[in-house]
Amino acid sequence: MSNYNANWKKLRSFCQKLLQCEGMIEEEAFIVSDCLVGADLCGVESHGVSRTSIYLKRLEEKVVNAVCRLEIEKEFPASIAINACNSMGMVAGKKAMQKCMEKARTNGSCFVTVNNSNHYGMAYYYVDMAAREGFVGISGTNAPPNIAPWGSSVPYMGTNPIAIAVPTKDEPIILDMAPSVVAMGKVILAAKLGQSIPEGWALTEDGKPTTDPNLGMKGSVVPIGGPKGYGISLFIDILCGILGGAEFGPHLGNMWNDFKNPQNVGHFFSCIDISKFTTLDIFTERLSQMVKEIKALPKNDGVNEIFMPGEIEANKIKERKQNGIPLSAPVYEELKELSLKYNTPFDIGV
Amino acid sequence: MSNYNANWKKLRSFCQKLLQCEGMIEEEAFIVSDCLVGADLCGVESHGVSRTSIYLKRLEEKVVNAVCRLEIEKEFPASIAINACNSMGMVAGKKAMQKCMEKARTNGSCFVTVNNSNHYGMAYYYVDMAAREGFVGISGTNAPPNIAPWGSSVPYMGTNPIAIAVPTKDEPIILDMAPSVVAMGKVILAAKLGQSIPEGWALTEDGKPTTDPNLGMKGSVVPIGGPKGYGISLFIDILCGILGGAEFGPHLGNMWNDFKNPQNVGHFFSCIDISKFTTLDIFTERLSQMVKEIKALPKNDGVNEIFMPGEIEANKIKERKQNGIPLSAPVYEELKELSLKYNTPFDIGV
Repeated sequence: MSNYNANWKKLRSFCQKLLQCEGMIEEEAFIVSDCLVGADLCGVESHGVSRTSIYLKRLEEKVVNAVCRLEIEKEFPASIAINACNSMGMVAGKKAMQKCMEKARTNGSCFVTVNNSNHYGMAYYYVDMAAREGFVGISGTNAPPNIAPWGSSVPYMGTNPIAIAVPTKDEPIILDMAPSVVAMGKVILAAKLGQSIPEGWALTEDGKPTTDPNLGMKGSVVPIGGPKGYGISLFIDILCGILGGAEFGPHLGNMWNDFKNPQNVGHFFSCIDISKFTTLDIFTERLSQMVKEIKALPKNDGVNEIFMPGEIEANKIKERKQNGIPLSAPVYEELKELSLKYNTPFDIGV
Repeated sequence: MSNYNANWKKLRSFCQKLLQCEGMIEEEAFIVSDCLVGADLCGVESHGVSRTSIYLKRLEEKVVNAVCRLEIEKEFPASIAINACNSMGMVAGKKAMQKCMEKARTNGSCFVTVNNSNHYGMAYYYVDMAAREGFVGISGTNAPPNIAPWGSSVPYMGTNPIAIAVPTKDEPIILDMAPSVVAMGKVILAAKLGQSIPEGWALTEDGKPTTDPNLGMKGSVVPIGGPKGYGISLFIDILCGILGGAEFGPHLGNMWNDFKNPQNVGHFFSCIDISKFTTLDIFTERLSQMVKEIKALPKNDGVNEIFMPGEIEANKIKERKQNGIPLSAPVYEELKELSLKYNTPFDIGV
């Protein structure tokens, strides 16, 4: 447990205010802070408010545009190619998903690409949004290299995540996954804590399995299913980078240490309107049957419950909305410093 | 090497003629035999002409309709919900992908579901077709259970494959994968050969890791990335079964031993028209750069070449078109028996 349990709404307002200090408009700063706090609510701290400082830094350095502008490059009844004009990734992402939903609502489905964008947080955010409106929502983004093509040991593709969500009668079922066995963040964390990592997580610079996180950090993370994870990662980059017209592979800008050049990240968004195939009632009714059947299956030793994808996160969201978001001491201290720097009251309910 | 190297065109004609003996029309029998021989050309023998006998048996038992009929249940500019009326899966699949391409050509993208269908062979076939016409092609199908939900040891989802392809200046890049570490076919083959299997391929009925293929066959195959592969498999079933209105999970009919009830398999097809986002020239030019960069990366010890997804298969197709398809003795004998049964000349070029 953390000594710093933040109230999620206050934390969100606080981050929103900080972002407004760097020129973001209220509504758009809300989107970014909502996405960050959303990640913390889910338990995905790597994509949570710990990122506020790097976003602020990039805004301060003017390497990202504070006010979102989307240019439609091409548009058809079921497709839009968008240039995000170096806007904040989450704002571009949310607006792109909204446009995608509109077209899918009319025409059955839609596929949208976004180029010239920036880190867009967790993919979960966008597909959750679509599922709650009655769509199958799908989204992916490319990212700087962490995975080596199968047969090499030099990272080329990012741990490019893909997420998909569908509505149920209760919370959406959401799969949000990187195509690697673990995120590089877990390897970095083990190194910080002086712990070894299980074999199968990471490879050294020479492509050899390692249990030393320091060697893994210099190398790459292992794709799931070997060549399969390589393929998944590659195709997400093809959709975001090659099709969408963003950078790809090692040409993507690094968010953490390059404050001169835009990242030129690419994302894609896809919606399928469930009501154009069946009715939402029949869909959720049949899905309930599937969920019931799966949850009633015999469990392996030591397993208390069989979870649907996204169910653990949904449970955590409920719990943290009630009991607060446990911030780590370094994140708490960092936010406190930002409150001083931006002269913003540090009112996060701790 | 095999003693039975079949000429691929003659083999295709032979299988086509057999299928016509069971009431299929020439053009539709061609699609099925083309898909079967296509799998053998790729080296995916499990989905090749070894399946001719079971298809014929199902046609003979009239548990599948010999002549394809597609009913459009719902249609919008970028979506079609199709009922395949218990037609052969490959014929329904090819026709559905053609309709999907037509709409995507006009509107940018399209998503198509097919229910009340049957085994559709390898997903590769449909996405390859779309890529050659300038689309990103995506397809998946559900299948009877072989994978247990994470935390259980009772199979619920199939090793539901998903495939995606894009055009290049040369052969398409194609990822066609099951969400399991290996196909159940490999476990069955090891059992037949009296070999043990590596840990990590299969689980026993009690959900324990095993190196005994006989125990694995009674259990389940391991999903890639644990809960991630479970999620992928589940979502393919949700798209095919729940959204598309086919059966799902353990309710799907078994092709091999149930000759009374239709399988009611579901598929989905998705196309994205590349020219609605960029030009095909720019797309393939940038993709060439990516491929060149990946292939030029340093290789791990013992690796001669870094392959793109589908490249090994494309190489095998070229080689086998030239040198013949090496049939195993049991498959050769089975086809020979079918030639007698159906009084069809056994002219396959061996």
